[in-house]
Order: sequence, then structure tokens, then C-alpha cells
Amino acid sequence: MNYKFSEKVSHIQASAIREILKFTSDPEVISLAAGNPAPEAFPVKEITRISNEIFNEDPILALQYSLSEGYTPLRDLLKKDLEAKGEFDPESDELIITSGAQQANAMIAKVLCDPDDIICCEAPSFIGSLNAFKSYNVCLKGITLEEDGMNLAELEDVLKTGKVKVIYVIANFQNPTGLTTSLEKRKGIYELAKKYGAVILEDNPYGDLRFDGENIPSMKSMDKDGVVAYSRTFSKVLAPGIRVGYISAPKEIVNKMVICKQVDDVHTNIWAQVLAYRFLTECDMNEHLASLRKIYKHKCELMLEQIEKNFSSKITYTKPQGGLFVWCTLPEGSDMTSFCTRAVQEFKVAVVPGNAFMVSESDKTASFRLNFSTPTDEQLIAGCEKLGRLSKEMFGE
Amino acid sequence: MNYKFSEKVSHIQASAIREILKFTSDPEVISLAAGNPAPEAFPVKEITRISNEIFNEDPILALQYSLSEGYTPLRDLLKKDLEAKGEFDPESDELIITSGAQQANAMIAKVLCDPDDIICCEAPSFIGSLNAFKSYNVCLKGITLEEDGMNLAELEDVLKTGKVKVIYVIANFQNPTGLTTSLEKRKGIYELAKKYGAVILEDNPYGDLRFDGENIPSMKSMDKDGVVAYSRTFSKVLAPGIRVGYISAPKEIVNKMVICKQVDDVHTNIWAQVLAYRFLTECDMNEHLASLRKIYKHKCELMLEQIEKNFSSKITYTKPQGGLFVWCTLPEGSDMTSFCTRAVQEFKVAVVPGNAFMVSESDKTASFRLNFSTPTDEQLIAGCEKLGRLSKEMFGE
Repeated sequence: MNYKFSEKVSHIQASAIREILKFTSDPEVISLAAGNPAPEAFPVKEITRISNEIFNEDPILALQYSLSEGYTPLRDLLKKDLEAKGEFDPESDELIITSGAQQANAMIAKVLCDPDDIICCEAPSFIGSLNAFKSYNVCLKGITLEEDGMNLAELEDVLKTGKVKVIYVIANFQNPTGLTTSLEKRKGIYELAKKYGAVILEDNPYGDLRFDGENIPSMKSMDKDGVVAYSRTFSKVLAPGIRVGYISAPKEIVNKMVICKQVDDVHTNIWAQVLAYRFLTECDMNEHLASLRKIYKHKCELMLEQIEKNFSSKITYTKPQGGLFVWCTLPEGSDMTSFCTRAVQEFKVAVVPGNAFMVSESDKTASFRLNFSTPTDEQLIAGCEKLGRLSKEMFGE
Repeated sequence: MNYKFSEKVSHIQASAIREILKFTSDPEVISLAAGNPAPEAFPVKEITRISNEIFNEDPILALQYSLSEGYTPLRDLLKKDLEAKGEFDPESDELIITSGAQQANAMIAKVLCDPDDIICCEAPSFIGSLNAFKSYNVCLKGITLEEDGMNLAELEDVLKTGKVKVIYVIANFQNPTGLTTSLEKRKGIYELAKKYGAVILEDNPYGDLRFDGENIPSMKSMDKDGVVAYSRTFSKVLAPGIRVGYISAPKEIVNKMVICKQVDDVHTNIWAQVLAYRFLTECDMNEHLASLRKIYKHKCELMLEQIEKNFSSKITYTKPQGGLFVWCTLPEGSDMTSFCTRAVQEFKVAVVPGNAFMVSESDKTASFRLNFSTPTDEQLIAGCEKLGRLSKEMFGE
């Protein structure tokens, strides 16, 4: 039988990251290509204790069908926390628990976008979100990401078409670049979204992982006009395997998302929601976050130091103040794809080619992404040393 | 700000079941409206033990990111089990773990259907799937469900339009009717799907809950032509709150679903997948299923006996051989909505009005759904007695 697939899915293919990760099954290969939290960052002892307590105290709660909106005590707690930061308005906002922020971001496209509606995103941006948007047949427009955030003039030019439904922004320690959007640009994006009636999807998976510099207010905290949908996740601060995220947004939008959630997967694994709730109420989250920042600060500094020491001086790179990634750029006009291919095949180090994060993988970029959260210190040092040798062979000292 | 939502979601609204369930928060109300497994059916002791072992033996496995296809040992085990039943062909089929069968069924619509493509479903059918299909803007055609399954002539008339992508069938103890499709009709549906190039989505959540009569081969077990996608779930045999389902289908279809899964929620909660795997390998599933069948056989017989004893003889009803539901039909031309409304408001018994399960809630039906899995024996007896009084008041002895 011949299957005719929907237009939606014909637009997406398996992410290039997954293709690269295939090489990493080779035990010889050092992977700087992942985006996983450091395993030592998981609070295993507390999670084990809490999980046991859940089953000893109220097993049926953790096993029976639950509400599509999410576990009520967890939702109420998150609303209170966000409200304290000025990121949730009980008058106008609602909050839904999702199966990771991935589902929250994908659902925003599902509820707001018809085919050919435009979603503006940073170029480069997180491939998982770009593919999620493509899977609803939207038209993606990449806006050049500068040191301090999107190019506002480019953004306004696209907004002028009147077809932009959503502006997708990862304002803190962006994936893949590690760059952070400045306060001025956050205000600028907010004003433009308001002026042209677009919704901002502010995706903030790494905000709690700032290990340098001063915190910058979220766009959600500026929102007086129902412009911002704000997605967060427990993946980077608790554990990604439990798949618990959430999004706070204007009530009308969340109400539609609840209906979508009901038909997409009924509700998020309830054991994981109770686990997250009990962790937040029984453990010292601030202390836990401090320990995470310590781990990532160390790993980031180690990687930057090894890049400085080993890489060809022709390669430029970002110096993130948080998150999991460093973005490296080869000299103008050099062949990034052959660099990444030689890196994994000859030097046994996996990195992610930058075009994986562009709106179209055919878009030109001389950059690649390095991850410092997953590898061990030894792997970081050995991996950067090997990449250094390749870079000097290709581009000189 | 005014939000313009996508056409997709403007087609769906919160399910009527949820509206009814609101009344059930009133402690006075006896709910025969749910579809939850009996809490006493959960193997709490084994799940508690296995969950503790997971965290004691390999916590990182249960907390770190995992594969979109699902946990490999669980997938391999399920493939082997299905292959033994003739329901998986290693040559041509693949299998993906989903966040409940709800996600598997919704994804079939996402990967196969463009707007206005037709999905044929039984009328009545499971509202959760109908709304999932609507959320991809498909055109639903309800095919009259007879005692032994879909009316094949009606089905073929719709297939002749050439626009049918999917035929959705719950062949065993269907939700909401409790009816089972005969072997002849399964063969008939299969031949028609093959002839007109439509995919059969065979949804089998209740197949293991047969407590009477002989097992009937699935359409998937007849599939030599890559026609059938076969979705199953752990919701009714282990626990629904863990949200673990799976679907076996021709490789080409599953490969597309893996890409969708990656962008929809990355992967299903991995702790829950390891839990399901270890339960299947460490516990006696046959013994567990036998105990479930015993529970549901008792509850079903009790409900049928109480209906027989209390209801007006003008009300007809199905006698299911498995599953969770009984379907009752009022005398021709009577007002089902007022019956259901009076039942919950005056007699404090919640049932689900049959129109909730029709392609359009405005479609006429004189039927309503009763659930026997969730209520206690006492609630079953009291609920049927109250409904009996109402039925005799409205329709005589």
C-alpha cells in the first residue's frame, strides 16, 4: 500500500542532532553534541525518597486518570511563585502543566496558527521548537540573532506583513548560541509584538541556570497587555525524563490549550507532577539551584579555558552567563560541514553543525554548537584538545 | 488583545463528559459517567516495589532524556508479544511508545490527514478520539454501529468518495456501547479498507478485559497488506495515570510518527516506560489480567442485574462481554437530554448523554452510557435503583 502523508509532516524531518548522536553510540567518540543536564545534577536521593512516599501515602493519586490542566496543587504553587516574580497575573493569566516545555511550545502553534501564518524566531534557534512549528505547517521567518538579541528592524519588517501570529524568543542563554537578550531588546520586542498584535512565546528553560552576571526581567514580567505566553520546564532543574513543563499565558489561550491537551495526551504523567510538587514543597529549591549553577559554572569555565588554550585564534565563540551551550564560529567562508564531519569521523568528537538550528538546514552558517553540561571534565578537556588540533590544521594557529 | 485561534481548535470544545463530571464533584451524586479503571484493579504492591527498585538500581535511566521511539527493552518485548499473536510483522511493521493510546490515535490523524480528508468512525464512538481527529481539521463521517459492528454498505458509500484516509474502529467492547465487531465484519472492514486504500486505525484498549465469550482475531492479525495501525494502552491493564500506550503499524507510518513524537513531547515519561517493562517481565501478567476480568465480570453482571430489576422495560441495553460500559436506549422519540439532566439534578445519578459520542453533538440519539468499572457495588445498586425510578416515572413499568 502507498501512504500519502499530511502536508504538515512532509515539512519536517528527523533532527540533524539525532543524526549526529548516532555517531556518539561509538564509545570512542566524545560527544559535545548533546543537550542533556549533567547526571550529577539530578537530586536522586530526594526524588527516590519522595517517589517512595507517594506510593506509600497515596498510590491511587499517582496511578488514576487526572485533570488535563494538571495536578491542582502543583498548578497553584507555580502560579504563586510566578506571581511573586510578576510573571503571572491572577486576573488575566492561567497556567497549564504540559509534557515538557516542548509540548507547551508546540501547542502554542497548534492553537494559534493556521497554515502559512508566520512565526518569527531567532536565527539560529532551538531545532526542536522550529520542527514543532513546522509540524503545523506554519511559515517560519528567521530573524538575525545579534549579541544582545534579535535584530529589531528585521523583526518589524516581517511584522509589517500582518501575517505574524507568534514571535518565539529564548531570552536567556539561548539554545544554541548561549546568548542573552538585553533588557532594551526585550522591551523592543514587547513593544513591537503589542503594536502588530503578535503573541510572544517566551521560552525560558535555562533562566534558573544563570551562573554569571545580573538577572534580566522576563518579557512576561513586562506584560500588561496579554501579549506574552511564558513556557518553563523542570527538565533542566529537576530531571528531563519526567517530562514536566508548564506555560503561563492569557486565560483565553490557556483555555484553548487545555482542550488541546485533552485530545493530545489527556494529561501529563501524574506521578511526575506529584513528584515535582513535593520536591518544590519539601526540598530547598534555592539550595538545589545553587548547586546546579556551581556545576555548570565550573563546566562552562573549563570549556572556555580549553577553547582559549587549544582552538585556532581564527575561531570566535560566545561566553555564556548561564545555560548549557557555547557557540563557535569558523572564519568567514570556511566549510563548517566538513569541519563537523572531520571532527566526528577523524577526531572522534561530535559537535552539532550550526545549520541544524537554522530555519532551513540549507541556510548558510559557519558556526557549530558545543555542549558543556553532559561531558565529564576529562571528556571536555580531551574533546577541546582534539577540536583544537583540527581547527589549527584547517585554519592555522 | 484579541486572539485569533487556528481553525483546527475552533472545531473542538471541551468534552460533554467533562461537563457532566463537574456535577460528580457533588458528594451526593453517584457517578456512572466515568470511564476510569477500578482503583482496586491497580497492582499497587508490585508497582511500589518496582518503582523503588528502579531508583535503587538505575535512577539516571529513569530521569535522563530518552529516545522518542520509546524505551528499547519495552518496545522489543511488546513487538515479541504482538508477533506471537500475529499482530506484528518484523518485516513490515514498527512500534512506537506513546503517551497513552490517546496520543497514538491523535498522531495517526496528524501524520495521515490534511484538512477535509475524511476519517470514518463508528457512530457512536469514543469522544476523545473524535475530538483528537477534529483538532486536525479532518472531516468525520459517522457510520451506523450495529450489534455486530459498522454498517458495511454505509462505510463503502463513504469510501467511494475517495477522500477517506482512515477508518477508526474500536472492535472490542466499544466505548461507549460495549459492542464487539464480529469476525465477518472485521474481515469486511479490512477488505473495504484495502480496496479503497484507507488505513484502519484499530484501537484496542479493552481487548484484554474480555470476561465472557470467545476472543475474536484482531484486524491487525489479518493484515498482509500494510492496512492496519493497531493502538494499545497500559491504561486499563496497569494504570492510566502513567500515560503509556503504543501503536504497531507499517514502518513508513511509524517512522513519521517518531518525528511527530519528537516535536510533540520528545518522549514519554521514561520512569513509566521502565515500570511497564519491569511489570511485564517480573510479574505474572496473565494472573493479573485474570484478576481484572474477575472484578469487571462481577461489576458488569451486578449492573445488568440491577438494570433488569429496576429499569422500565421500555429501556433496551447492551450486554457487553468485556470492557467498562453498558449502552442504554430510551423508547423511540423520548427526550434523552431531559432524562440525563433529571437523573443528575433530581436523582443525583450522573450518566453520559449519548450525543456526546456522536460526530456532532446535535446528532439525534435516544441513548446514554453507563460505566460499571469505577463505582462501588453499593453505588452501582443505588444508582441503578434511582435511574429505575426515573425511567418508570418517564416511560412506565
